[in-house]
Amino acid sequence: MPWQETRSKSANLVFLQSESSQAMIIEANIVDIRNRRIDFGKVGMQGGRIVSVQRTGQERDTASYILPGLIDAHVHIESSMLVPSEFARMAVPHGTVATVSDPHEIANVLGVAGVEYMLDNAALTPFKFFFGAPSCVPATHFETAGATIDSLAILGLLERDDIWYLAEMMNYPGVLTDDPEVLAKIRHAHQLGKPVDGHAPGVVGDAAVRYIRAGISTDHECVSYEEAAFKLEQGMKIIIREGSAARNFDALHPLISQFPSMVMLCSDDKHPDDLAIGHINALVRRALQEGCGLFDVLQAACINPVEHYEIPVGTLQPGDPADFIEVKDMESLEIIQTVIDGKVVFDREGVRLPAIPVQVENKFAASPRSASDFALEVPSGQLRVIGAIDGALVTEERVLDATTVTEEDADILKIAVINRYEDVPAAVAYIQGFGLQTGAIASSVAHDSHNIVAVGRHDADLAAVVNAVIEARGGIAAIGGGEEHVLPLPVAGLMSDQDGRQVAAAYTAIDRFVKETLGSTLAAPFMTLSFMALLVIPRLKLSDKGLFDGMNFHFVPVAVTEQLS
Amino acid sequence: MPWQETRSKSANLVFLQSESSQAMIIEANIVDIRNRRIDFGKVGMQGGRIVSVQRTGQERDTASYILPGLIDAHVHIESSMLVPSEFARMAVPHGTVATVSDPHEIANVLGVAGVEYMLDNAALTPFKFFFGAPSCVPATHFETAGATIDSLAILGLLERDDIWYLAEMMNYPGVLTDDPEVLAKIRHAHQLGKPVDGHAPGVVGDAAVRYIRAGISTDHECVSYEEAAFKLEQGMKIIIREGSAARNFDALHPLISQFPSMVMLCSDDKHPDDLAIGHINALVRRALQEGCGLFDVLQAACINPVEHYEIPVGTLQPGDPADFIEVKDMESLEIIQTVIDGKVVFDREGVRLPAIPVQVENKFAASPRSASDFALEVPSGQLRVIGAIDGALVTEERVLDATTVTEEDADILKIAVINRYEDVPAAVAYIQGFGLQTGAIASSVAHDSHNIVAVGRHDADLAAVVNAVIEARGGIAAIGGGEEHVLPLPVAGLMSDQDGRQVAAAYTAIDRFVKETLGSTLAAPFMTLSFMALLVIPRLKLSDKGLFDGMNFHFVPVAVTEQLS
Repeated sequence: MPWQETRSKSANLVFLQSESSQAMIIEANIVDIRNRRIDFGKVGMQGGRIVSVQRTGQERDTASYILPGLIDAHVHIESSMLVPSEFARMAVPHGTVATVSDPHEIANVLGVAGVEYMLDNAALTPFKFFFGAPSCVPATHFETAGATIDSLAILGLLERDDIWYLAEMMNYPGVLTDDPEVLAKIRHAHQLGKPVDGHAPGVVGDAAVRYIRAGISTDHECVSYEEAAFKLEQGMKIIIREGSAARNFDALHPLISQFPSMVMLCSDDKHPDDLAIGHINALVRRALQEGCGLFDVLQAACINPVEHYEIPVGTLQPGDPADFIEVKDMESLEIIQTVIDGKVVFDREGVRLPAIPVQVENKFAASPRSASDFALEVPSGQLRVIGAIDGALVTEERVLDATTVTEEDADILKIAVINRYEDVPAAVAYIQGFGLQTGAIASSVAHDSHNIVAVGRHDADLAAVVNAVIEARGGIAAIGGGEEHVLPLPVAGLMSDQDGRQVAAAYTAIDRFVKETLGSTLAAPFMTLSFMALLVIPRLKLSDKGLFDGMNFHFVPVAVTEQLS
Repeated sequence: MPWQETRSKSANLVFLQSESSQAMIIEANIVDIRNRRIDFGKVGMQGGRIVSVQRTGQERDTASYILPGLIDAHVHIESSMLVPSEFARMAVPHGTVATVSDPHEIANVLGVAGVEYMLDNAALTPFKFFFGAPSCVPATHFETAGATIDSLAILGLLERDDIWYLAEMMNYPGVLTDDPEVLAKIRHAHQLGKPVDGHAPGVVGDAAVRYIRAGISTDHECVSYEEAAFKLEQGMKIIIREGSAARNFDALHPLISQFPSMVMLCSDDKHPDDLAIGHINALVRRALQEGCGLFDVLQAACINPVEHYEIPVGTLQPGDPADFIEVKDMESLEIIQTVIDGKVVFDREGVRLPAIPVQVENKFAASPRSASDFALEVPSGQLRVIGAIDGALVTEERVLDATTVTEEDADILKIAVINRYEDVPAAVAYIQGFGLQTGAIASSVAHDSHNIVAVGRHDADLAAVVNAVIEARGGIAAIGGGEEHVLPLPVAGLMSDQDGRQVAAAYTAIDRFVKETLGSTLAAPFMTLSFMALLVIPRLKLSDKGLFDGMNFHFVPVAVTEQLS
């Protein structure tokens, strides 16, 4: 093969272009994770695949480094408020080439059609999305979701070549009590040879052993070193999570070198403003700063997801897809270019993936509300108030006197959840901790059923902000001080149809408005808001059907009545 | 799952038998190669698969060790003179659970039917044989083989699910000169996503780079560290060979830790007497004694072949087939039991695989010969004599005076190759180095075409020993001192239909007879004999068609005539 040397636009890289433009050789320091060595050499590509890896000498200070691309081993794309094709454009500058993704959020709105929406959109971009079949739709029967995916529908999804695994089995009580539907879903995955992702926060001891023995092979919910080490010791793989919502990296990073083939990295949820700043690359950098071994970290970020999910992402071996990144050095990890299937998708001239017109699909049946819809007849005596905690998914159940709750200057607001799939009355309760001095905020991103959730003091404000979301057919909104801010999310009420950077800027702007103008004291008010209807995480939450005790798994009234014990 | 503890017959092992007899837990030190750690713990199995790996504490001196089974990454089963089902019975006591095997020898006799014979026999045993499509049948056009496997037949084989790779591409000149048939065979493998094994002894530099760029990903022919390191640097995987014929372990073992994911271990050819003594287990033990890292060695022996050939052999991960071995300790590697797909195939009570009646298939058309068939009219002047070298596949071309050659006390014997596929005259020449004082030896194992090769002083002895092989329809034979020893190999003239240990004993006996009674000075006279017709390895060899110069690739006469230069 006659190679011709041409200097590429990318800094340190020598391209040797063959007469056939399909073939290319890259000369750089080659980070060989599998053999745990770095040599200077040449990587030959043809037809989107690596055809040769030649080591020609020792690592050179003056040269850049090429290594396999980074993989987010568990992320709900919907949390970025972007459709996959726009998520891809935001992720490739960070060296991400692939994600293992659970379309759980859109599935709760649109069912199997939502999963198909994600697959269809993802197919339009060279970025490698690997979707799973969402195992828990709806998440509970105490809320109104847009769809149900039963074990038969799961089988239909798992039989598809583009569905790679059964996504996080959140219903761990169902696993431990041998729920037939739950076991059928797991059995379908096993019979098709596809892995089953776990979700078992805080489950340890015998329960964890039984959960793992059911054939559930990963967990990304560990918050403590001890919990994760226990699960690893039981043979479960651990996906260390550091996203916009949950951050477990500081507690768990020592495991990267202790179980180098059983640890992966993920974000789980990545909001648009965070995704603009960094992704798995930031975790790799932090792990190196913490003293984790280079090859252990890269194995977690680049190799283990490929092995575990058996996904066709290249690891710089001959025959592999040509998926890799070029970085300036191994400390800064400054991305010079990102390559997927031999195609440059990011380099110093920017993102090379074009914006693709976004198809809008939705399910949104809610009609505009008036202030009276949010009225709450306050009984005397003691009331249950949701205690929101900054940065946490859990809440507290606070029992306060009715007179305190209704004081104008108390930090006690109303929270409402409005079923968006049928026109029924709103559920209304009290909440403490948002710190809004004025106005109201609302969102149709409300895990897991994604009804509309709103927080504010005055019923008129609540009606106005909810109507803003309804008018946009989904989105996040804030009103107050004579201003109204809306970020429309017309795709299933979860994702924007706009450019990713614009969405990130709009999200940043509305977030700032809620904090600076409305006075919220929360670090990320819309994120906290989105978890106030998430029933599976205790303690007191609000479903579209009413106030819910997540510890005892039943509805409770706002007024505390005498209880029989 | 309710587990019941029962003490197993095997020493240190605790079996916890569940009520369902399919399920079992083994408690031992778990050698986790992928995570490079050893912990005490429990491995749960069900339905032939690993369902759980629980670490319960630190490594215990008092307990045995379990680790993935050993894999011979390249072996011609035929060299053991045993059919696969008997090879398996000889290999499992050494902890071998799988082989990657090229049925090249039987294919040269029986063609595709020979490959099918191996597949059919292998299917009768739980031992894991992974066969390739033999790429070079016949090996050259200067000899008569029993069959031809062209690129179309290769495609037919490669399309089978039970054919895992294109076996060693010995025709490296064909690769380097773009021979269309050779390239077609390689292309078929690539298009079907199956790897191509190499065979490029001594090929380095640009030629090696071009050979590797053709998409050939392994080599097991390296004899020097430099050659192997060069090929590894070019991205080729190296299979370190230590068998009955070629022994490269001493030169190459440092590479095990230098390229831990690119090195495998193999025997290539393993004679029955050697196979009775040890297999890959002996190589692992030696590597540890040489100071190679434990996990590097085990990765080469247990993991890398699984990854490279994508073969379903378990590596002690949940979900894997339950293929593993239990050893007393990690120094002696004394095998306590070998388990394949959850079935104990060897333990302290012996091999648990029953002997299976062997189907005989053959192609053998040679008729008995008389002494006059081996007469050679000796011209005066100088003669070419094959110089056999103990322990080597190469020979020398020695030019000696005719009077010396015919002296009764010179160590110069006759060598004959008799076409076994059609009745035509024998090819006869002179050979030095076998050291026989009396009698003659013959074999139908004669690489690569497996005609009959015989060495002896007197024509009558040659006729007698060749007729002994013909009468047995293949085998190895020796006569002299009034004795006749024959080890019949009726399966393709290559393999016995008898019990493996009996074959090993018979081989040892006939080998001793040739050395002790006939006086051969060679370490393994039948092995050296089997390579005297192997034309592709220089320098002077004998084909059924005549004396062959393997350096210049043409026939030469016995008498040295004046050459034009």
